[in-house]
Amino acid sequence: MLYSTLLGKSLRNVSSQILTRGHALLTQAGFVRESSAGRFYLLPLGMRVQRKICRIVEQEMDRAGAQRIHAPILHPLELWRETNRDQAAAFELMQVKDRRGGSFVLGGTAEEMMVDLARRFDLSYRDLPFNIYQFSEKFRDELRVRGGLLRTREFLMKDAYSFHRDRADFENHYELMAEAYTRIFSRLGLRARMVEADNGYMGGDYCHEFVVDHELGESRYLVSEDGARAAHEDVAAVRHQEMNAGEELLPMRTEKAERGASVEEGVRLYGQPAWRQIKSVVYKSDSGEWILAAIRGDLRLNELKLCRAAGCRELRMATEEERRILGSCVGFVSPLKLKVRRIGDLSLQTVRTFYTGADEFQRDTLNVNYGRDFEMDLLADIALAESGHHSLKDGGVLEERRGIEVGNIFQLGTYYTERMDGATFVTDSGAREPYYMGCYGIGIDRTLATIAEIYHDEKGLLWPQAAAPFDVHLVVLGDDSTVRDNAWKLYRQLSGAGIEVLFDEREESAGVKFADADLIGIPNRITVSKKTVSADVVELKGRAETTARLLEVNSVLESLRLAAK
Amino acid sequence: MLYSTLLGKSLRNVSSQILTRGHALLTQAGFVRESSAGRFYLLPLGMRVQRKICRIVEQEMDRAGAQRIHAPILHPLELWRETNRDQAAAFELMQVKDRRGGSFVLGGTAEEMMVDLARRFDLSYRDLPFNIYQFSEKFRDELRVRGGLLRTREFLMKDAYSFHRDRADFENHYELMAEAYTRIFSRLGLRARMVEADNGYMGGDYCHEFVVDHELGESRYLVSEDGARAAHEDVAAVRHQEMNAGEELLPMRTEKAERGASVEEGVRLYGQPAWRQIKSVVYKSDSGEWILAAIRGDLRLNELKLCRAAGCRELRMATEEERRILGSCVGFVSPLKLKVRRIGDLSLQTVRTFYTGADEFQRDTLNVNYGRDFEMDLLADIALAESGHHSLKDGGVLEERRGIEVGNIFQLGTYYTERMDGATFVTDSGAREPYYMGCYGIGIDRTLATIAEIYHDEKGLLWPQAAAPFDVHLVVLGDDSTVRDNAWKLYRQLSGAGIEVLFDEREESAGVKFADADLIGIPNRITVSKKTVSADVVELKGRAETTARLLEVNSVLESLRLAAK
Repeated sequence: MLYSTLLGKSLRNVSSQILTRGHALLTQAGFVRESSAGRFYLLPLGMRVQRKICRIVEQEMDRAGAQRIHAPILHPLELWRETNRDQAAAFELMQVKDRRGGSFVLGGTAEEMMVDLARRFDLSYRDLPFNIYQFSEKFRDELRVRGGLLRTREFLMKDAYSFHRDRADFENHYELMAEAYTRIFSRLGLRARMVEADNGYMGGDYCHEFVVDHELGESRYLVSEDGARAAHEDVAAVRHQEMNAGEELLPMRTEKAERGASVEEGVRLYGQPAWRQIKSVVYKSDSGEWILAAIRGDLRLNELKLCRAAGCRELRMATEEERRILGSCVGFVSPLKLKVRRIGDLSLQTVRTFYTGADEFQRDTLNVNYGRDFEMDLLADIALAESGHHSLKDGGVLEERRGIEVGNIFQLGTYYTERMDGATFVTDSGAREPYYMGCYGIGIDRTLATIAEIYHDEKGLLWPQAAAPFDVHLVVLGDDSTVRDNAWKLYRQLSGAGIEVLFDEREESAGVKFADADLIGIPNRITVSKKTVSADVVELKGRAETTARLLEVNSVLESLRLAAK
Repeated sequence: MLYSTLLGKSLRNVSSQILTRGHALLTQAGFVRESSAGRFYLLPLGMRVQRKICRIVEQEMDRAGAQRIHAPILHPLELWRETNRDQAAAFELMQVKDRRGGSFVLGGTAEEMMVDLARRFDLSYRDLPFNIYQFSEKFRDELRVRGGLLRTREFLMKDAYSFHRDRADFENHYELMAEAYTRIFSRLGLRARMVEADNGYMGGDYCHEFVVDHELGESRYLVSEDGARAAHEDVAAVRHQEMNAGEELLPMRTEKAERGASVEEGVRLYGQPAWRQIKSVVYKSDSGEWILAAIRGDLRLNELKLCRAAGCRELRMATEEERRILGSCVGFVSPLKLKVRRIGDLSLQTVRTFYTGADEFQRDTLNVNYGRDFEMDLLADIALAESGHHSLKDGGVLEERRGIEVGNIFQLGTYYTERMDGATFVTDSGAREPYYMGCYGIGIDRTLATIAEIYHDEKGLLWPQAAAPFDVHLVVLGDDSTVRDNAWKLYRQLSGAGIEVLFDEREESAGVKFADADLIGIPNRITVSKKTVSADVVELKGRAETTARLLEVNSVLESLRLAAK
């Protein structure tokens, strides 16, 4: 392709509103443009990268035996009603009606559609397992978008759905998919870690995110010292150590406490570490239930863990007004007093002689012990896991990380197939059972953005070969007609050999052309100039290299041809 | 791929509600399934055909220098307001709102989006021309759907948009696109004829449909005897011959006429041919204007031609009530009396001594002559062109045809760029001018369906090589382990040589397997059985052939490898 005809030539500057370096470079170098907020055009360069990514994903999915299909983007709303997900996921679902009165959901994920497809076939155990996948635009009515293609409202996703006769068969496949995912990201130059995660409104019992470490990521997770196990903060189960097991027990008493509402104020008043205090928070669940959550003062609550412990879908903190009505005093909430459902963190068992507010302004209850003086309705792990905490599973020390979720895989079990009529197969004994399912997603555009956030330097992008928009950036310098003829000849030679070339044939200075080549970040730059023509060689420079080498045309052609395969 | 694991095995029967043979076969053979009315799943076989079609389209678009991009599916409604198309195309536009109050159109065509993209670049004449295209799902809120994938509410389309400095540059490119389209359809085994057509709500001055002749088609067009020129019925301009030029003129008179409302009743009453009568119809336009349209009695009106002549967007016939109020009498409408805007067909000039209703029940005016006794406000070609009519251009006799519109190309001119702010480029003299545009669509799913409607026989589908889901349908017969080992070996050999193979390795009879192979319609069937193994050959049968040949494995492999390229 000729650079002069390319739509999306590089810009001198980009808007200062673009906050991430990768997205700024994608914009400046002419890969993407925003349409409305969170919806993007891919320009020819960006499109080429997207296609490279899709091809690798497709190859690995096919290799794992998955079958590519296509499902409509508009899902009949009735299907989402069958699983009640029109309620569960309503906050980010977009809906549309047609002029005949039909109601549709703009697909954000396609479990119901795929089950609805499968149940149209009279499947038997002989037809299982199978895995069907598609590449399709997905829609999420996100309140906030960020980082260009990192979080958008409309994006290309590869989503796959597997159907099995039983859990054992599914588990084999889940492992196969995990391997395929690891290969996909590794081929794209991304070190993606498999992180145990929460399954949100997806149903099922467990799932994993594939996370690429990066400060821009929204996935905060904990990893074991040896790096072998990782879990998202929402599911990382932690164990807390006894703080003062030998300490003498004292009689409980309530007295005046001239402190403010925060844990720090308690530390200051008593000269005791934060873990001495019980921190209590009042919540209201989506079903209208009041919940008091209590945790050791040096720890933080994880609301998703609390949700799961409470068995509800959403929680919010009670307002001051609500707490006043309940008779609870901000900063002095007591787990001994308030008569609502009480859920405590496991850490309440690790301290002798706590103090807590007494549900009266500036009064504390001292020498409080779990078991002796109070009990909760439920004890569970509801603490936010942090660096230095110990894993509940093996006691190992955990370390916090942050990364970008580029893919995820879900065990769904029979969550959907039990809720949707007729989603069954005939077993070898002639019975009917719901199929056992898994699903597997990769955010294609987010993967593209992640590569850009990771592979760049101060001059521009640095595409890994597998994701590069072109193999070679060919630059011709000067207006000498022999030089230009030679460059055109080389362009045709390279293209003829199946090498993808972006040919900068403009009448611009070496400075401008080299700067654009660095900005765009194609792995190989070949320069044809007076110098090279007279010597019958070309100048080759790797994007990451600092100096160019003079090489014979044929040897360059051969090595590029091999690399492009 | 193994047939046993394929999602979408063949059915014995399909619903009798499926009326077209091609769609019935696509359903029965496992290529497609309907989701909601007019929205389809592509099963793995159908998906493979769709990808083959897309690859050919992409290759030819790239060869013509077009650049593939991606635009969001949700278009900001504001853009459609800029060109007023939110009104002009409203009847088939689907709209959606997000929870932040944004309004969007589900893309049905993307002129505004592409202009909005182009105007973000500070383009100069040096950047022109360019052509950008995408493959994307399109949405049309159709009242009726038909023929499976022939007319749907959601479909994959390749849509391209070209930008030029002037009309001359555009016209060159339009020709280039026409050639690319011809090559695309020809590679897919379709004889697509370029038919001059009406541009609907697209704007611009002219356009062409690519039509494949088929009785299921909705495009009725007229073709010249030599086949060189074709025009859609809505634009085919016809000339009518003088019927009775030498006839004596008689004085006009009005008298009792005991006839019904139809032309045929007049023929019966007077014993004169239908062309003697003036047929008049009263319409109401979308702007509320009354229009009387008059035409020779043996011809039919084309309402789209009338619309264009009247300069309105839509017309409907006046209701009986409305005509009563206007003082017009059904079956006896007179172009001499009614005081509304009158538009006549050119054929009114070809008859001496017409008769017409007198706008009173059972009274006719006789011996009426255009020019002598009445005139219309406008004479224009508003007749439906039919077989035997003469072309207005060259007088040649026209023939009616019917076909499926698989693609279309539009001159848009500056229709969009004049209406959208800032859609300009800098000319070589430094001025700012709106770009001159064209657009070019191919309905991918409709093309797939058209191939199926054309390529089948009584046993099943008959895919042209270029669109076939696989190159080879490999069948193994019997349960002999040597035979099966050989078949598996051949499957690996073929696949290893880059040949796409569907391997029917089920334990089914030869009858069942051959019937499925015929139904699916892959161009080559290879059978491995006891007979072939002992002779170290394979049995090869072309789908369209009636007998199989025994051939050496290596020669089969070589010829298939060449064909698959």
